[in-house]
Amino acid sequence: MTDNRQYFTFAESPNEMQLDSGVKFGPVTLCFETYGRLSPNKDNVILILHAFSGDSHVASHTGPDEQDDSAGWWEYMVGSGKGIDTDRYFVICSNVLGGCLGSTGPASENPETGKPYGLDFPVVTIADMVQAQKALLDHLGITEILSVIGGSMGGMQTLEWCLRYPDMIASAVPLASTMRHTALAIAFNEIARQAIMADPKWNRGNYYGSASPELGLAVARMIGHVTYLSDAAMHRKFGRRLQDRSDFSFNFDIDFQVESYLRYQGEKFVKRFDANSFLYISKATDYFDFAGENGCRLDGLSGADIRFLVVSFSSDWLYPTSQSRELVRTLKKNGLDVSFCEIKADCGHDAFLIPNEKLNGLISGFLQGLQR
Amino acid sequence: MTDNRQYFTFAESPNEMQLDSGVKFGPVTLCFETYGRLSPNKDNVILILHAFSGDSHVASHTGPDEQDDSAGWWEYMVGSGKGIDTDRYFVICSNVLGGCLGSTGPASENPETGKPYGLDFPVVTIADMVQAQKALLDHLGITEILSVIGGSMGGMQTLEWCLRYPDMIASAVPLASTMRHTALAIAFNEIARQAIMADPKWNRGNYYGSASPELGLAVARMIGHVTYLSDAAMHRKFGRRLQDRSDFSFNFDIDFQVESYLRYQGEKFVKRFDANSFLYISKATDYFDFAGENGCRLDGLSGADIRFLVVSFSSDWLYPTSQSRELVRTLKKNGLDVSFCEIKADCGHDAFLIPNEKLNGLISGFLQGLQR
Repeated sequence: MTDNRQYFTFAESPNEMQLDSGVKFGPVTLCFETYGRLSPNKDNVILILHAFSGDSHVASHTGPDEQDDSAGWWEYMVGSGKGIDTDRYFVICSNVLGGCLGSTGPASENPETGKPYGLDFPVVTIADMVQAQKALLDHLGITEILSVIGGSMGGMQTLEWCLRYPDMIASAVPLASTMRHTALAIAFNEIARQAIMADPKWNRGNYYGSASPELGLAVARMIGHVTYLSDAAMHRKFGRRLQDRSDFSFNFDIDFQVESYLRYQGEKFVKRFDANSFLYISKATDYFDFAGENGCRLDGLSGADIRFLVVSFSSDWLYPTSQSRELVRTLKKNGLDVSFCEIKADCGHDAFLIPNEKLNGLISGFLQGLQR
Repeated sequence: MTDNRQYFTFAESPNEMQLDSGVKFGPVTLCFETYGRLSPNKDNVILILHAFSGDSHVASHTGPDEQDDSAGWWEYMVGSGKGIDTDRYFVICSNVLGGCLGSTGPASENPETGKPYGLDFPVVTIADMVQAQKALLDHLGITEILSVIGGSMGGMQTLEWCLRYPDMIASAVPLASTMRHTALAIAFNEIARQAIMADPKWNRGNYYGSASPELGLAVARMIGHVTYLSDAAMHRKFGRRLQDRSDFSFNFDIDFQVESYLRYQGEKFVKRFDANSFLYISKATDYFDFAGENGCRLDGLSGADIRFLVVSFSSDWLYPTSQSRELVRTLKKNGLDVSFCEIKADCGHDAFLIPNEKLNGLISGFLQGLQR
């Protein structure tokens, strides 16, 4: 099995990135993967942007001259003959600045000190992530994007791409996304951050090379994970069933299956994710505000030639359908061409990640319609 | 200001309580408060049972021979001329076994060791709490209850009272309650417990006399607190407003008002609540199952002469109206007289604690109807 991850480094001194916070920062490495072939006139690019804990590995690589059969996070959607057909499209999936899955983030080495950044890493925004991705596309010589597609935080990046580079983009598909976090979404993020920062092993972000704040990060993940599920899905999956026992334990071990599942999700997550990246990325999502105060950010988008497909999921209570409808209204008010679909699915916010024929058909139909 | 808390101790060796777990346990002290006067024929008793973090202090004491003007947790509902009128009724509010607000719980001294129980305290159930409250009522010479009333976990105790002692009870008012926790409710409780147990100061429950796991407990409280609110209430209260600043901090201090509010709620809570009690009481609510498997627990209730008033709140997503409706159906199937009301209120699960004229009128009308 070959690793198909690629790396692009830029913003090297003195040409550092200017971040939203005003800080100048560099160098930046972005990890990305590509699928399919770029057409001779470079008009078949699809940029896929991932959610909170995702990475560049959106699908396995099964082309004739590549071999990486490990399933990606959107395996059912991306590939030869699938909804996003890699026989037709050149797919780029880019990881995010601030992350820990191949791109520069708080766990990366600070060239000034030779040690990991920790909290010296600057707070980044969704716009900073997008600015870095734009540098990647410049590097790849791509000036035209057929479609930008992303779910959840990937949807935020999708929207930010449209704000920043409307002339490059023919279409955009924000899935299970929102224009901005409500107080409830901020609250869950803040509690998760508090759980990490309450872990003494976090040590103000300075834990690299010693034990990491796994217990705090596991609690943070469990909080996030619950917000991605729906009551109905949890009821179907677990109900009140007990885990490997016929009666209550009458102690604080695992009684219910849902408890076992959550602990497993927490333990699995801490093996692949950095606690500081959790802080930075969650902050970026809290800061994101598509429209800005009184719609001040929308000027550049007004009348842009971008076709939108907005998709929500009926049981998503983190970014409910009402928030996608607000996005649709905002886009339409600004003269954009918008299609909207709420997909009936009882698996909550995570529904876009779960094989769904309807979503598959919706996206493939939308993409095919673009090239007619 | 006088403290009107009273204490009743029972289950002293060798007459220990037999708990649901099979463990024999004692002695048990319950803290309680009373309001108003018991009528000569002892037919005006109202038993009020509190929610998760409540206590015996349901209201201030303002009778002619008492003085305690500190407001209680249901101040607007209980008092002279109020919804639960202490000029007419003799109100008893009892704290719970396992708690930390005057009654025996994990922080109490284990007479066998002279040290706090910690995790040697037995896991108790809602039924165990009710069994202890029954001993208190026996002690007070009360054999007849006009109404048992409680919200949230107090509603669970209310329902359990009806199951165990149907012949004593003329009416019952479970508010914002449920027959059993869903997987989602168990999930939130389990994450909160994990947050406490992840705090190294928790030290397997053995922290009395040294620093207590305040950081873990604060995170646990924040999780609970968010489930008590609604998205709409949080939006109205906080929206995305910043706390004492005009722009983002670009660090991990407080940016949003909702973050400041949550941290305050966490800090306030750890001053009055014991982390181990959080574990025990949350476990009791997870274990609670009013009907039991295939309704096996309902036999004694069938055809009992208890009038029910079931009340839910429209924006409660922890124990939503659908769960109160299920309770109503279950009670009716068992031949009970049930009135049901969903009150439109946008403040979430906590709505029953917030002054509400409709709830006030509903309860006072229901109680007056009983004595006609």
